[in-house]
Amino acid sequence: MEINRKKFTYKEGFAFEDGQNLPSIDLMVDTYGSLNKDRSNAILVCHAFSGSHHAAGIMEGDTKAGWWDDFIGDNKTFDTSKYFIVSINNLGSCFGSSGPTSINSETDKPYGSNFPNVTVQDWVNSQKLVMEELKIPSWALVAGGSLGGMQALQWAVTYPNRIEKAAIIAATSETSPQNIALNEVAREMIKRDESFFGGDYYSEDVIPRKGLKTARMLGHITYLSESNISARFGRKKQSPTSKVDDDVNYEIENYLRYKGDRFAEMFDANSYLLMTKAMDEFNLAAQYKGEVLEALKNITARLLIISFDSDWLFPTKHSKHLQEQAMKAGIRSSFIELEGNYGHDSFLYSSEYYDKSLKNFLEVV
Amino acid sequence: MEINRKKFTYKEGFAFEDGQNLPSIDLMVDTYGSLNKDRSNAILVCHAFSGSHHAAGIMEGDTKAGWWDDFIGDNKTFDTSKYFIVSINNLGSCFGSSGPTSINSETDKPYGSNFPNVTVQDWVNSQKLVMEELKIPSWALVAGGSLGGMQALQWAVTYPNRIEKAAIIAATSETSPQNIALNEVAREMIKRDESFFGGDYYSEDVIPRKGLKTARMLGHITYLSESNISARFGRKKQSPTSKVDDDVNYEIENYLRYKGDRFAEMFDANSYLLMTKAMDEFNLAAQYKGEVLEALKNITARLLIISFDSDWLFPTKHSKHLQEQAMKAGIRSSFIELEGNYGHDSFLYSSEYYDKSLKNFLEVV
Repeated sequence: MEINRKKFTYKEGFAFEDGQNLPSIDLMVDTYGSLNKDRSNAILVCHAFSGSHHAAGIMEGDTKAGWWDDFIGDNKTFDTSKYFIVSINNLGSCFGSSGPTSINSETDKPYGSNFPNVTVQDWVNSQKLVMEELKIPSWALVAGGSLGGMQALQWAVTYPNRIEKAAIIAATSETSPQNIALNEVAREMIKRDESFFGGDYYSEDVIPRKGLKTARMLGHITYLSESNISARFGRKKQSPTSKVDDDVNYEIENYLRYKGDRFAEMFDANSYLLMTKAMDEFNLAAQYKGEVLEALKNITARLLIISFDSDWLFPTKHSKHLQEQAMKAGIRSSFIELEGNYGHDSFLYSSEYYDKSLKNFLEVV
Repeated sequence: MEINRKKFTYKEGFAFEDGQNLPSIDLMVDTYGSLNKDRSNAILVCHAFSGSHHAAGIMEGDTKAGWWDDFIGDNKTFDTSKYFIVSINNLGSCFGSSGPTSINSETDKPYGSNFPNVTVQDWVNSQKLVMEELKIPSWALVAGGSLGGMQALQWAVTYPNRIEKAAIIAATSETSPQNIALNEVAREMIKRDESFFGGDYYSEDVIPRKGLKTARMLGHITYLSESNISARFGRKKQSPTSKVDDDVNYEIENYLRYKGDRFAEMFDANSYLLMTKAMDEFNLAAQYKGEVLEALKNITARLLIISFDSDWLFPTKHSKHLQEQAMKAGIRSSFIELEGNYGHDSFLYSSEYYDKSLKNFLEVV
């Protein structure tokens, strides 16, 4: 599989939905496979909250395979011998695209808490810049899970002429109040960390490590299911020789603390706040007088809506509601609930019916 | 309804399951109604994680009615004109019974992090001291929800001759790894608060307020259901004039921050750690070679097991499993899943079938 990684810089500036502008933005872009002659084989994959442009394969500097490596590659579901896959790190994140850790050329300091608020619409608009630079007339497919699924849906609504199909996985047309609540707890943990300094911790040479750690511990619980945690960890005690801290008791505790610590080392706290706020604010109907039906009437692309039975963060009823509204709007949409062994995280891992659903949608429908 | 509140002091000492001893313990006890002549009308109600002895009515100093006021009172489900209700603040808690905030007579300082670990079995054993002081030969009923349900179940197993009936509500025979995980996140928030000082914050004249606040915010989400949060708050924005903080956006955020702040003012951080650890450690089968069936074979009391359909913290499958094992053990047990509008918190609020189930169990069965 051909992999290319490149930072795209747009010096014409970028206007955010919140009214702010940046004079220049960077977008980190991975591409897998190659564009065909008539430029009709391009697929955009959109990452979730803590993901990045690195969706597949391993390049120099990568410590592990990309987040959708199960699906992207030669002869895989998104077959890179036939398709050209584009994956872009979201604006506001912290893996190379412009975000709070980027240097503000006016102050020579990181933007920090002054980085504009980002929205799902902003991400879609910035992804369109890359699309134009690559001279892709229309995406054969835009696909993503969770926050990535929201982007796929927004693409279909905002740019109906530039997208053939959208796969909206483990997502929703409107973030639930429960998700807002969970995000708010995580943000409070970060903001109340004494090393947060109102978001300007960079100049203090510290990071709000404890806040990030506990936020991620909570996140992990929500990404998994009760059954998955029971099957994987049960009530097993952590062996004394492998405890990350003396006061760890159960394996699940050790796992969460370990994962939380690793996350705090790789993710930026201001990005955490921005990305979760973008999720909270997602409400497809907002620009359509609260009527999701009206938003969906714009869509000409075919939709595939997938949920997982063990996902309690974006439960099936959200996907069902979207399908119901799509049918009412008279657009072409299919919905399937799949068995998932990993709760919300099920969207990351291949399984027979999941693969088949995506492959048929891409190639047959 | 006759209400009496009294602190019982046991100067013969108390031996905790973890091997530690205290030379003297206090237990705060509320009683509602009066004991009949043959002392056969006594009901013990056991409180959940953040509850107290104050289960019903309002006495001087109380700011609101007790946690089970829906059920306890003259002509209510637990009719105080007929029954004598006993409610005891758990050891290790912070509402008058001995706990981390109590003064250790050997050091003249609060026990703090040196208070013994408490278990559900310890609570049952301490409740038995009160039972003996009140000369109650046998409880007509022991009832409780959540952690209170675990105590009711443990009573039936440990003291089969001293209990006629047990109502085990929104509980389990074995705390799930997901619950352990959620408790662990809350504990980490508290322990990593810079005002925690390893549990000895009393001498520093501070409290780990931020940790307690975020822990409670998370707790609240788990006590409710997605549907309940949606119905009650939806995606409504908080009005600017009533925000608890400038950076609050949605009503659900404002509610959680407000509740978190209030909780931090009334609950002790060391008690939070002790009570959640007691919950984590609850595993009825532990002393029976991992076989819950063997534990249940001790039971002679009748059991009523209740779950609520919207409870995702102690979901129905736990109650079903308990009922299945009870049937296998050949003991008298009924199970009912009820509709609950409040998620896990449904056990606190009366509703037609819930009331009827409890009343029939108490009076007819």
